[in-house]
Amino acid sequence: MNVQGVHHRTIWPAENGRSVKIIDQRLLPHRFVIEELRHSDEVAVAIKDMHVRGAGLIGATAGYGMLLAAMEAAGQSDFKGYIKEAAEKLKATRPTAVNLAWAVDRQLTAVAAGSSADDKITIARQTARQIADEDAEYCRRIGQHGLELLRELAARKGGQPINVLTHCNAGWLAFVDFGSATAPIYAAHDAGLPIHVWVDETRPRSQGSKLTAWELGQHGVPHTVIADNTGGHLMQHGLVDLVIVGTDRTTRAGDVANKIGTYLKALAARDNNIPVYVALPSSSFDWKMRDGLREIPIEERDSDEVKHADGWQDGKHVEVLVTPAQSPAANYGFDVTPARLVTGLITERGVCAANEADILRLFPERAQ
Amino acid sequence: MNVQGVHHRTIWPAENGRSVKIIDQRLLPHRFVIEELRHSDEVAVAIKDMHVRGAGLIGATAGYGMLLAAMEAAGQSDFKGYIKEAAEKLKATRPTAVNLAWAVDRQLTAVAAGSSADDKITIARQTARQIADEDAEYCRRIGQHGLELLRELAARKGGQPINVLTHCNAGWLAFVDFGSATAPIYAAHDAGLPIHVWVDETRPRSQGSKLTAWELGQHGVPHTVIADNTGGHLMQHGLVDLVIVGTDRTTRAGDVANKIGTYLKALAARDNNIPVYVALPSSSFDWKMRDGLREIPIEERDSDEVKHADGWQDGKHVEVLVTPAQSPAANYGFDVTPARLVTGLITERGVCAANEADILRLFPERAQ
Repeated sequence: MNVQGVHHRTIWPAENGRSVKIIDQRLLPHRFVIEELRHSDEVAVAIKDMHVRGAGLIGATAGYGMLLAAMEAAGQSDFKGYIKEAAEKLKATRPTAVNLAWAVDRQLTAVAAGSSADDKITIARQTARQIADEDAEYCRRIGQHGLELLRELAARKGGQPINVLTHCNAGWLAFVDFGSATAPIYAAHDAGLPIHVWVDETRPRSQGSKLTAWELGQHGVPHTVIADNTGGHLMQHGLVDLVIVGTDRTTRAGDVANKIGTYLKALAARDNNIPVYVALPSSSFDWKMRDGLREIPIEERDSDEVKHADGWQDGKHVEVLVTPAQSPAANYGFDVTPARLVTGLITERGVCAANEADILRLFPERAQ
Repeated sequence: MNVQGVHHRTIWPAENGRSVKIIDQRLLPHRFVIEELRHSDEVAVAIKDMHVRGAGLIGATAGYGMLLAAMEAAGQSDFKGYIKEAAEKLKATRPTAVNLAWAVDRQLTAVAAGSSADDKITIARQTARQIADEDAEYCRRIGQHGLELLRELAARKGGQPINVLTHCNAGWLAFVDFGSATAPIYAAHDAGLPIHVWVDETRPRSQGSKLTAWELGQHGVPHTVIADNTGGHLMQHGLVDLVIVGTDRTTRAGDVANKIGTYLKALAARDNNIPVYVALPSSSFDWKMRDGLREIPIEERDSDEVKHADGWQDGKHVEVLVTPAQSPAANYGFDVTPARLVTGLITERGVCAANEADILRLFPERAQ
């Protein structure tokens, strides 16, 4: 999507072929800074410390991390041992996003087929690019499938704006391009449908306030930021037509792990007969799991994120302490929305209901 | 309750008899500053700009505001006109809290019975003290009734800590003493029951992080601050035994207006079979209303509260911009939790179900 009128992806190879460039998302919305990652260790730090975040982008970044690891391994006595260690290091950075392990494993398998170090590097380079390109293409298709839903809704609303509520950032910035939850929104906006987005601020890291509001604003999509507490009230008063969120991991039965708080919005939507759609590329399915509540590991992050807030004052990034210094805090990163609360899944292959039979209708190769 | 080991109320008359003292709650948890209000206009500002907040304390502060207005009116040619104007000014500061109008009207009625300006001032002084004393006494009784519920729960948990989730600050700081939602918690803690409180941070003003965490900490009650998004996840995993919140206005049918986000927690509690109690002195009932969703006015506050966060850095209070400067935000202060989601109401007269018949069992004088 565009930044100040110029098209960007969220990750791309540097011209020198030996490093990869990302947007340091920690500085958004107030500074647009491009960071160059030169070593797989730097990639691991960028994922762990959330210079990059979001299901698809974590996968694409890990893919490029494995390319850097392959280039590093070429100078080592034990190529295979080095790259396996790098793979483990990358996988350990974030526990919930299934795309991370998926991209790393895809690289491991691909690289193993190479006959020489140079060959392995060439394969890793192609694979990294494929992972990124597929991510962008899948998100584009999600946008087209979601657009059909929004067209139907727009027809029913007779010219009134469609009000979509989204949580966290499953946007362009969370993928390589277009986003998952935002792809139908951008597609609808570009197609001339009147659309307005309620943006949950998404504490504690405020990805809604910082990232979703920024990218919607850059693209010119009307939006309003709200505290995470607000969605239920809006739904009770007819101010939300549709919820669209992303997911960090969805089971084959349709249970959806997403940013903490998604479950609360899904409950409110159900209570007010509002549809809830989850937009995801198939890389976000965990085909080995069914029961999301029991099986999906939920990341616990540093409690300082809850105790503090951060933003900008007089052109400087400032972090402030909100709670009493001595008060403990807990910081669960995700929750699981049971499939029963999800109206449908928007995938690159089309829209399905959140149950195993209908998911397998779109992905028959995953039948067991 | 105690602050650094010394007993305080949240509001008390100054020794000179001509002003009233409050805690400037905007500076908590990092500074404990006592503010002296010398004019009814200053009282209006203190309520509007939330130096004081919370259902009971707003009422008690308005009560003292009317005392100051009566003293001011004594110097005017039109005593009655002046005090009526002051009453309207005070009532207009916050639209949702029913205690505000209740306290102001109680003073208007009381003062009207006075035969002279001096007599009216004496009556206003007595009435202000009565409003404050009743508030503290009613909260103490709420604590005793709620304690019985917590004792039953403690018995079922066999020595494991009781986990209570609360939203916003319906604490000591929201009343004159004890609090409403916190009164049973303090009573249980003082009675030696093992109790732990999940404190919703309560964006955008973070009254949970700043006030509830502070007052629980001052009293030594174990607690953990969480983002507002977290409660559903905790409930799904058996980590919440009970929700207790306060209310700014509850209808005679049991619909509960409380800080925005309460409805979302009530939905999650229902989905996980966890009881939801609302603690309130009878002054928080609006006996004229039944349908809370249709009838209770919901305050919309400045969108800057959502766009910004504030806290402390290097000993200074700092406000930071979180969203893009150009992004709009909406700031609804309250939502309404329908009675169907409320397990019970804890009042100064005992516990009742959230329906008109059972509320009237405790308050038969309100039958129509």
